[in-house]
Order: sequence, then C-alpha cells, then structure tokens
Amino acid sequence: MNDKSTARQHSDKNAADIDFGVLPDLLGYHLRRAQIVMFNDFVKAMADVQITPGQFGVIAIINSNPGLTQSALARAVGIERSTMVAVIDALENRGLVERRPSPNDRRSYALVLSDKGAKLHQDLGPLIDQHEQRLSDDFSEEEKNQLIDLLSRIANGSR
Amino acid sequence: MNDKSTARQHSDKNAADIDFGVLPDLLGYHLRRAQIVMFNDFVKAMADVQITPGQFGVIAIINSNPGLTQSALARAVGIERSTMVAVIDALENRGLVERRPSPNDRRSYALVLSDKGAKLHQDLGPLIDQHEQRLSDDFSEEEKNQLIDLLSRIANGSR
Repeated sequence: MNDKSTARQHSDKNAADIDFGVLPDLLGYHLRRAQIVMFNDFVKAMADVQITPGQFGVIAIINSNPGLTQSALARAVGIERSTMVAVIDALENRGLVERRPSPNDRRSYALVLSDKGAKLHQDLGPLIDQHEQRLSDDFSEEEKNQLIDLLSRIANGSR
Repeated sequence: MNDKSTARQHSDKNAADIDFGVLPDLLGYHLRRAQIVMFNDFVKAMADVQITPGQFGVIAIINSNPGLTQSALARAVGIERSTMVAVIDALENRGLVERRPSPNDRRSYALVLSDKGAKLHQDLGPLIDQHEQRLSDDFSEEEKNQLIDLLSRIANGSR
C-alpha cells in the first residue's frame, strides 16, 4: 500500500464518523432518504421497461379511468397541467397512451391506454409487487398500515 | 353559463370520482405523495433563499464536519460522487461553500462553509423549523417519532 492510498483512507470518513447535525431530528430528512431508497429500487426494478414511479402512477390511473381528461389526471396526481402534458407526450411517443378527442370538451383530450400500454400495465404488476415486498419486508402488516396512514396524513394535509 | 363550460364541468372528474386502482395499496405511492407535499412546502419556505432539500442537507453536514472530503460527503448523503461534484459546484458558485486542498489527499478537496454559507446555515434554522412544524402539526410527538422510525428502517434497509 503506498502513501497516497493510506492518506486517502485516513481522510475519507466513514458515514459512521460523520455528524449529521440537525438532520436526524427532521421528519423531512427521513422522508427524503426513504423516498430516495424507494426511487432507486423502483428504477432498478423497472430497468427493462424504463418506467418511473410517476409514469407508473399515470398508467395505473388511466387504466382504471379510461377516457379521463388530462386536466382531471393532473389534478388527481397533484401536478401542474403543463407538467402532465409532457408526461403524456412521453408515454404517447412510446405508444403506451393514446389521446382521443374528448366527447365533452373540444379543448381537452380523453386518455386511454393503447393495447401495448394495457399489456405493459399487466406486466408491471409482478414487478411492482416485488418492489413493494422489498420496501416493506422489514415491516409487520400493522406497521405497514401505520406507515401508510401517517404518510397519507402528510399528503392530505392542508399545506 | 354556456354549453362549453357546462360540458367541461361534466367531463372533468373531481379527484374524488377517480379510481386510483392499485395505487392506494402501495407503500411506494404514499411515500412519493408525502415526499411531493414535503418538497413543495420546502421549496415555498425557501423561495427567498433558493435552497433545495438536497442542498440544505449538504450545507448542514459541511457545517457539522468542516474539512470533510467530497467523497465522504457523497457517501454520507448516499449519492454518486459525480452528482456531488455538481451540487458543490452550484454552492461554490453562490459563494456558500469553499473547496480547499485536502491536507491528506491531493486528489480530493476539503469542504468548508464560507462566512456567507455559515450565515445562511444559521438563517435557515427558523425556516426549517417552521417547515417541519407544518409537515408534522397533525402528529403527536409519539406519531412523529414512529414515522421517523419506520422511514429510517426503509432508508437503512439492505436493498
């Protein structure tokens, strides 16, 4: 071992040596860390199909509500209408979602899954199940429900 | 009210009318929703200072560990070293963080907050407190601790 690598080992603190300051007391910090772990596992699970958590949510909602408008979808997901346009553009370009003229509103589109999109939605089921299993394999059923309840209260808060 | 706006109202489902399919059963979905609410509130709270949650974490850790290397910081935060370089670039460009030659490793930098960065870190305290208060004002102290514990177990999982 040469001097340089010895020096590097000494100067490179391990995570255990690091003082995280105020962070461990912050709910937001823990929420973000858990989200990053979840996101990374999701991306890994979906490596073959290249679907993000946001795209999966959109596909699942269109699957359950065929013909829904972009505006209604944007409200349901809680993102800006303009952001949703880009999300749908990407899914349409991949042939997964189709925009049809809305029967009730000529200024909007009715969204449906294409056959390819419906097939993908079906194929995603087992991948999502395995991903969820990995996320929550530490938890009892009660703990998982507790966590979902607490997270829902943040999401549904009036902030 | 003309025909068009009547039609639009009818075709635009409210969130309550929407079938979320499998999503409400998924821990990942609730985690993501809570994270989005947290992130949006954080961004709003930091509108005047333009600091993201990730940047705040980095500033807090450098503040508590002056002289730490970029590599050690990247490991502590759990992101790629190359991503951390961009994060530090942005903070250095704003005069908040300084890169100094590492006394132990000529291939790395020792990171410290500038005076401006240290002042900002201090000013962020009350903003973070208010943000945390808004996130958790629904919760008892016990519920908040429970939530932090459950989230930590996801973040520290071996996935």
